Amino acid sequence: MARKLNFSSGPAALPEDVLRRAQAALLDLDGSGIGILEHSHRGPEFMRVLERTEAAIREVAGLDGAWAVLFVTAGATHHFSMVPQSFLGEDETADYCHTGVWSGKAMEEARRFGTVHVACSGEPDFTSTPRTQTWSTAPRYVHYTSNETIYGTQWAAPPHAPAPLVCDASSDIFSRPLDLVPHALIYAGAQKNLGPSGISLVLARKDFVESGRSDLPPLAQYRTYVTERSMYNTPNTFGIYVIGEVVSWIRAQGGLAALAERNDRKAAVLYDFLDQSRAWTPLAEKASRSRMNVTFRGATKELEETMLARAEERGLSGLRGHRSVGGLRASLYNAVPEDGIRRLVELLDEVERAAR
Amino acid sequence: MARKLNFSSGPAALPEDVLRRAQAALLDLDGSGIGILEHSHRGPEFMRVLERTEAAIREVAGLDGAWAVLFVTAGATHHFSMVPQSFLGEDETADYCHTGVWSGKAMEEARRFGTVHVACSGEPDFTSTPRTQTWSTAPRYVHYTSNETIYGTQWAAPPHAPAPLVCDASSDIFSRPLDLVPHALIYAGAQKNLGPSGISLVLARKDFVESGRSDLPPLAQYRTYVTERSMYNTPNTFGIYVIGEVVSWIRAQGGLAALAERNDRKAAVLYDFLDQSRAWTPLAEKASRSRMNVTFRGATKELEETMLARAEERGLSGLRGHRSVGGLRASLYNAVPEDGIRRLVELLDEVERAAR
Repeated sequence: MARKLNFSSGPAALPEDVLRRAQAALLDLDGSGIGILEHSHRGPEFMRVLERTEAAIREVAGLDGAWAVLFVTAGATHHFSMVPQSFLGEDETADYCHTGVWSGKAMEEARRFGTVHVACSGEPDFTSTPRTQTWSTAPRYVHYTSNETIYGTQWAAPPHAPAPLVCDASSDIFSRPLDLVPHALIYAGAQKNLGPSGISLVLARKDFVESGRSDLPPLAQYRTYVTERSMYNTPNTFGIYVIGEVVSWIRAQGGLAALAERNDRKAAVLYDFLDQSRAWTPLAEKASRSRMNVTFRGATKELEETMLARAEERGLSGLRGHRSVGGLRASLYNAVPEDGIRRLVELLDEVERAAR
Repeated sequence: MARKLNFSSGPAALPEDVLRRAQAALLDLDGSGIGILEHSHRGPEFMRVLERTEAAIREVAGLDGAWAVLFVTAGATHHFSMVPQSFLGEDETADYCHTGVWSGKAMEEARRFGTVHVACSGEPDFTSTPRTQTWSTAPRYVHYTSNETIYGTQWAAPPHAPAPLVCDASSDIFSRPLDLVPHALIYAGAQKNLGPSGISLVLARKDFVESGRSDLPPLAQYRTYVTERSMYNTPNTFGIYVIGEVVSWIRAQGGLAALAERNDRKAAVLYDFLDQSRAWTPLAEKASRSRMNVTFRGATKELEETMLARAEERGLSGLRGHRSVGGLRASLYNAVPEDGIRRLVELLDEVERAAR
């Protein structure tokens, strides 16, 4: 069976080159005669994988020595509680930018540990990223979700905040250059632009990490991941391997600036079509549109179902919108090819014309 | 390069059939046209993977409806704190059987949450599993490590305890039939007998899970994994897939009873050789010997280094003992073939003869 065009919101499409390299590595990593799943995490072969993965991430993200690169065996949801547990004292306040389901879950967890001030909110329909924020007096940190996978909104730039930013970048990390300066900690589940699910990448300023609580279980402290180089216990070795291959692929594509250009082009092709269409309507406000997850509706429910059925026939997969929003959603992560967007637009156009 | 014989203590050898199936699934899962890393965890293709994996585990382990099968995106170390945080109140006592490094770490974490009573200890050299235990008056649970990877000891049968058993079975799960009756919760990092690192399997009695704290973050409660079927957030989809393939392989080998017989034979071949050898000495006491990790020393440090060098030349890998114990260690997990043990014994014999 031919490979489908995968518009899934995550886990999501990965570069085929990376998958083919991973296939070979399953039986034999780097000519070692042992597969990547079977290598001791303390052996020289895996240490080389860890080193090259970290080096590629540092290069691509432009991280200097003030930053640590951490691999946490958990998804982004785990950081919803791990961040406030480490950094938010009972008598402290953290500011949260509320842009949808994921920021809502992050806030819910933070309230277990300290005070949450909602600095801005896209409620109730979350079709835009709030342009203005009302900060609290002295927030411990400011948390935002750089891209909202479900509603299809994205911060054009990080908020101007009076405290270090903590960013859930799960669905747009490494899709464009990172403005590191205002950030203290960036976390991302790997299963969109980075690799498999079950592992998250954390980029963190070491001084911020040091400011966290030190009386928690070792695996609940970011500090442990810094001092033990993500090897306090056995890490997700396959996840680290695949992330390394994906980031090397990103580097070979020209890095984040080149990918941002390509991702802008990809999103523009789809949004331009939707904007001129009389049958399809994008959901997010123009200034807040995500380049990663394009959400849109059909003029009728019937049109949407026709489109989803035709897409399935043509090998275009993962286009149904999240159940809480409805409609359609095309996720255009790094590995989705430009040609794929053209095929999607052609089919949307065809379905629209057929319905007239 | 030919595949090496892998005696690593974990991550460790996996069945080559499973690896070949995983290779194919990376590009195309079950003829779906999308790879296992790229499938939405909410889609029908992955749901089928989850269902067949759970079904295979239930069949092989003999679990009835009172038991839940949980996949936690974390290693066993995470459970060292997750178990007491959920089940051990500040004013309660849990009994721990102390058989080495791993039980020591588990005890250290439990002390953050309540009182730990050391019911037995193999200190200082941990060469045997203590035959007698002194239980506290009313322990909340009794924790033991069924197999000690570093020292090479194994409980022949679970301890007779006055409370539900919690077992860290990371290094011998599914190597022999499970005596479920005395257990409340069994957890295991996957990277020895089950699959890749970065995921753990938990078999838990639902009533025990229900007795845990309900005011913790969702991912810190086993309850959430039961009610959400390990899908509260995106699980480690690849890990679940590989575990499913490994457990299907176990079933095809004849199940746990057949594997136990084979594992007994494998270990016996090596221990019988070591017992008659004048150059090589097993470290664990006879009654406590592990069938999974055989630890032994050479008559001299030089002999050990000669053996390790010759093994490397012959494609026998992962035989160096843990740094805290020294000597050699051969891990004989399910996927290590019987023929491999014979090759190891031949080489040990050859090195011994050459040194005379």
